[in-house]
Amino acid sequence: MQRALVASPLSLSTRSFFLPLPLCLSRPIPIFHNLKSHNKHSLTIRNCTSSFKAKPSSEIRKFRNDPEPDPKLTALRHLFSKPGVQIDAYIVPSQDAHQSEFIAECYTRRAYISGFTGSAGTAVVTKDKAALWTDGRYFLQAEKQLSSNWILMRAGNAGVPTASEWLNEVLAPGGRVGIDPFLFTSDAAEELKGAISKKNHELIYLYNSNLVDEIWKESRPKLPNNPVRVHDLKYAGLDVATKLSSLRSELDGVGTSAIIISMLDEIAWLLNLRGSDIPHSPVVYAYLIVEIGGAKLFIDDSKITEEVSDHLKKADIEIRPYNSVISEVERLAAQGSSLWLDTSSVNAAIVNAYSAACDRYNWSRKSKHKTRTNGFDGSIEHSDIPFAVHRASPVSLAKAIKNESELEGMQDCHLRDAAALAQFWDWLETEITQDRVVTEVEVADKLLEFRSKQAGFLDTSFDTISGSGPNGAIIHYKPEPESCSFVDANKLFLLDSGAQYVDGTTDITRTVHFGKPTTREKECFTRVLQGHIALDQSVFPENAPGFVLDAFARSFLWKVGLDYRHGTGHGVGAALNVHEGPQSISHRFGNLTPLVKGMIVSNEPGYYEDHAFGIRIENLLYVRNVETPNRFGGIEYLGFEKLTYVPIQIKLVDLSLLSAAEVDWLNNYHSLVWEKVSPLLDGSARQWLWNNTRPVTHESI
Amino acid sequence: MQRALVASPLSLSTRSFFLPLPLCLSRPIPIFHNLKSHNKHSLTIRNCTSSFKAKPSSEIRKFRNDPEPDPKLTALRHLFSKPGVQIDAYIVPSQDAHQSEFIAECYTRRAYISGFTGSAGTAVVTKDKAALWTDGRYFLQAEKQLSSNWILMRAGNAGVPTASEWLNEVLAPGGRVGIDPFLFTSDAAEELKGAISKKNHELIYLYNSNLVDEIWKESRPKLPNNPVRVHDLKYAGLDVATKLSSLRSELDGVGTSAIIISMLDEIAWLLNLRGSDIPHSPVVYAYLIVEIGGAKLFIDDSKITEEVSDHLKKADIEIRPYNSVISEVERLAAQGSSLWLDTSSVNAAIVNAYSAACDRYNWSRKSKHKTRTNGFDGSIEHSDIPFAVHRASPVSLAKAIKNESELEGMQDCHLRDAAALAQFWDWLETEITQDRVVTEVEVADKLLEFRSKQAGFLDTSFDTISGSGPNGAIIHYKPEPESCSFVDANKLFLLDSGAQYVDGTTDITRTVHFGKPTTREKECFTRVLQGHIALDQSVFPENAPGFVLDAFARSFLWKVGLDYRHGTGHGVGAALNVHEGPQSISHRFGNLTPLVKGMIVSNEPGYYEDHAFGIRIENLLYVRNVETPNRFGGIEYLGFEKLTYVPIQIKLVDLSLLSAAEVDWLNNYHSLVWEKVSPLLDGSARQWLWNNTRPVTHESI
Repeated sequence: MQRALVASPLSLSTRSFFLPLPLCLSRPIPIFHNLKSHNKHSLTIRNCTSSFKAKPSSEIRKFRNDPEPDPKLTALRHLFSKPGVQIDAYIVPSQDAHQSEFIAECYTRRAYISGFTGSAGTAVVTKDKAALWTDGRYFLQAEKQLSSNWILMRAGNAGVPTASEWLNEVLAPGGRVGIDPFLFTSDAAEELKGAISKKNHELIYLYNSNLVDEIWKESRPKLPNNPVRVHDLKYAGLDVATKLSSLRSELDGVGTSAIIISMLDEIAWLLNLRGSDIPHSPVVYAYLIVEIGGAKLFIDDSKITEEVSDHLKKADIEIRPYNSVISEVERLAAQGSSLWLDTSSVNAAIVNAYSAACDRYNWSRKSKHKTRTNGFDGSIEHSDIPFAVHRASPVSLAKAIKNESELEGMQDCHLRDAAALAQFWDWLETEITQDRVVTEVEVADKLLEFRSKQAGFLDTSFDTISGSGPNGAIIHYKPEPESCSFVDANKLFLLDSGAQYVDGTTDITRTVHFGKPTTREKECFTRVLQGHIALDQSVFPENAPGFVLDAFARSFLWKVGLDYRHGTGHGVGAALNVHEGPQSISHRFGNLTPLVKGMIVSNEPGYYEDHAFGIRIENLLYVRNVETPNRFGGIEYLGFEKLTYVPIQIKLVDLSLLSAAEVDWLNNYHSLVWEKVSPLLDGSARQWLWNNTRPVTHESI
Repeated sequence: MQRALVASPLSLSTRSFFLPLPLCLSRPIPIFHNLKSHNKHSLTIRNCTSSFKAKPSSEIRKFRNDPEPDPKLTALRHLFSKPGVQIDAYIVPSQDAHQSEFIAECYTRRAYISGFTGSAGTAVVTKDKAALWTDGRYFLQAEKQLSSNWILMRAGNAGVPTASEWLNEVLAPGGRVGIDPFLFTSDAAEELKGAISKKNHELIYLYNSNLVDEIWKESRPKLPNNPVRVHDLKYAGLDVATKLSSLRSELDGVGTSAIIISMLDEIAWLLNLRGSDIPHSPVVYAYLIVEIGGAKLFIDDSKITEEVSDHLKKADIEIRPYNSVISEVERLAAQGSSLWLDTSSVNAAIVNAYSAACDRYNWSRKSKHKTRTNGFDGSIEHSDIPFAVHRASPVSLAKAIKNESELEGMQDCHLRDAAALAQFWDWLETEITQDRVVTEVEVADKLLEFRSKQAGFLDTSFDTISGSGPNGAIIHYKPEPESCSFVDANKLFLLDSGAQYVDGTTDITRTVHFGKPTTREKECFTRVLQGHIALDQSVFPENAPGFVLDAFARSFLWKVGLDYRHGTGHGVGAALNVHEGPQSISHRFGNLTPLVKGMIVSNEPGYYEDHAFGIRIENLLYVRNVETPNRFGGIEYLGFEKLTYVPIQIKLVDLSLLSAAEVDWLNNYHSLVWEKVSPLLDGSARQWLWNNTRPVTHESI
């Protein structure tokens, strides 16, 4: 599955490497700063001394006469002057407090206040203006959904200011800009603070309440309250005590005595727990603090069953109320515990609370005539003075490198998923052949029906992208019942879908044609397939970052001047989030994380012709050692093993473009598909699988 | 040609991306700081709080009894206490004042003081110790050449401190470390200053004299004094006025009124001048200051012929003494001129002099009740207060993108070079066939003899790498008459060489066998060739940085667990330096410079088996537009055109490994070699070319 990919690959500035979301990490769009080009060598770059001039809002605002006053905005602005608030503007981001990709409905505050329901966007409300930033995927939707009280800011378009640039323009100098500090990572808040300080604006952390929640009142959906379950050790592979012990060695290694983890999938992985607080992601809202000598899980205890309670006790984990995390962080500072903080994921409320508490603590120490000392070389000498260590969470990498049990679960669930897909494709082919009318939404629903019959099925792993003809070219297309298109024998059909099972997570894209594809469609499909094969077959030295392989997947398209505007591969969790880091295979060259044996990545090159068709071929792969005849440099050479076993439609392949080795790849793959998936099938689905896994002969080229 | 490549590609830390020299830029090895791994995700990285402990010198120093006192070191140390010097240590780097890759003999101060003549190394002398840092290429040579007064520091080996770490260990806190500020880039000096400040050492800029020169006295070689010549407009393509006018637009664009250029090839390119102050590089020692309204060339005026004088006058360029550059920079500050400074290439003496003069100037302004003001957004408001703009020199990119005349000159000289090579290979093949004894040095001399007969020949473009058998595996091998090996029918022979002609610069590597190559040698050669072809044939979107293509050249080796420890391509000047930036094709991912139409790069994958053989196949290519049937994204798609036309030895190719397309490539290439080069040949050399450009048939596979 693809997500949040807009910028042109390899385009002029570094902008395209960071804007919008990286393929596989849940980080907010940097709405608050324009990324300047860092290419020192360009002849055309200008100095940055001239300040940005936002276009007058009259040019951006839709022209409507006298908008109806918006009661939500009125209510929100009313709160600006409340004692303890006293702000000139309020920023409402999309995020929850944990930087989740999908979020619970009760946290969809930006959608509530603005009416815009797209997945990415930031609302900024001043005393007399309201503006919403979103990216190119959502311009049309936002135009429809925003009332005329709102200015739509088309992020990335020329002349459109960032939110902080806009605030610097519209507020009188020295303004107070309020945020809910739980909804911003510490890094994002610091960046914002710096950007608005140019006009002497102050960033105000409103700890006590979220202003949107205050006006949402009774109509606000309830906080998720589903029971947590234990993730069986046979799927997890490692028990919690072992994982915590590794983590504690890490803490010790950097001289900290505690770490706070706020990414929900990291908590679920570390504690072998799963939940259903969030659609598509089997996680639960919580914070976790691990100390050298203990651990505390901050969670609504009504979610804790007796089984979970016993499971946590066994690992010596105490349960605390979700809302008490701040006071615990302050307590750590007061007792002199140094804290590992990943400021790119932990929210500003926590980071700030710890830092303020450390200051208070050091102040009280100093008053007792003891001072914090620094070593000659600038390092902090060991003492019992607490300090924060800002580095990436070590759980992210540990989670990404799957153990054997996790890989086994992933392999097993992929075969059941493949069986459901064979049944589904058999059904769909029959429907179309018999000229029945099927919509994109019906197709997605039927697929869910087949999947849900498979053992261990829990949920889809994301909203199914079911795109017929031109809709296939919309990379994040989501069909809606009232407006969706039909799947028929005249158009290409792109289906990107996945599921959550008890033992693993799937994500697969196939593109098919039920009639006669054009020569153009076949050529494009074949070149995408060649890129898919090249990446699948690549061998590379250990420690190669994923982006080194990205060009392999594009080179066959590049030869004829084609490309695709998204990355090629993202990490996938084991019975966890369908997108995870830290690795990726992408043209975003900033991610230097090496590919490591046991990591899972998607292999999903594509090609999209606007208003015509979309093509994507996606398998999941895991990284394995390759037995090479040499091992130059004394290192391992790595390659991939497939997890996904679903036929690729031969009808769309122009065999004359393929090398003999590529034909062999196709035949070997289909032979494995039959071998692995046919035992799970009977009847017409088994026949469909047989029909679609027959080898093509070299003579047919 | 390859240079300065030691670290394993894609190895664990970021170290390998920066240490040692980047492939194509003349930057010093960062001897002064250990590059810590920046991989935030590694589970094993430790905190950096413990300070480095250098091994006791007894472990590193060679054991010899009572070394003879070294009169040079004694004389140098004597100068430490001179009035106006007063230092505790003195650092002698390899560089000249212009960061040249090759330097004039009079500037080889590090070689003079230490006795070590390798191209890379840094000497540090304290009152009682002397240490020399060099990299893995030179450990053996340094062991031989250093007396027992010197500690050899094997840079990059575990436990070996950097020079600044060592100074921090051996000097008492608060020491004074002297340097010649002309020999350090401003960036390098700043880094050094920061590193030694941890022990409160001070970095002392000794402007008035180089201490090594003071003890070198009469025996010091004379400063080069060869006449400068005008580079003909038919080769340069653009006249000086046009180039200066573009540069002045650049200055204006960033709000500066002057730029100082210190890289000798940039000056030569900008002024259409060439010289012979330095071996292999047709440049001349000079500085250039270009202002909006004029320009000054700082050069020893005895080098200026009447023709050159007229040429410079036409472009309104004044001539000033080389040594007066500092006072001119101070004058610019005093008159309020803002200066563009590339602190990665301009030396610390100049940057510091300008900055100090600005401070003095601002002081005198302030005393007249005027102050320098900053804008609200931190930018400097326009005024007549001088300020430095630190950015990469715009000449570097302009020079790298060749115009049509430059490309034509490069094409022409490559054909003459190819003719010389055909004569040479014909000669060598005959010698070996007739069992004559030929050494690696004789081979290199003979090649020079053939080349020097070609029209417009000036010099070799670097020291010929003539490596037989195991010597071919030493990437920067330089045969010496007294120790070199023989070229014969039993071993692979690698020859990397190039020439300077009036119209262009060449750089080519071929690997051949005059007897029967082993299966192993053939397989390795073929895989190197496949990588060479893959890069040669690659098509890529405009704005792709070179490293995106690097994996194409390696993938055939990777498949069997092989690799090479150097980059794949460097820029080449047009009748200028054989190595230039800013582009490169390398596994050093930090270089984001896009490949641009008109740039020249080498294509030189290789494979080296220690103590056995070395293989490299190198052509020069230039970047061109490719007429693709599509242009996705509305951008250009780019590819390469060859400059080099010299046969590749078919005997070494295992045709069974090649695809049909690769065989076609080989036949097409050889057909072009015959077509383009045969008209320049007659006799046996023409016959040799005919024999070596015959197509291989597909049936022979």
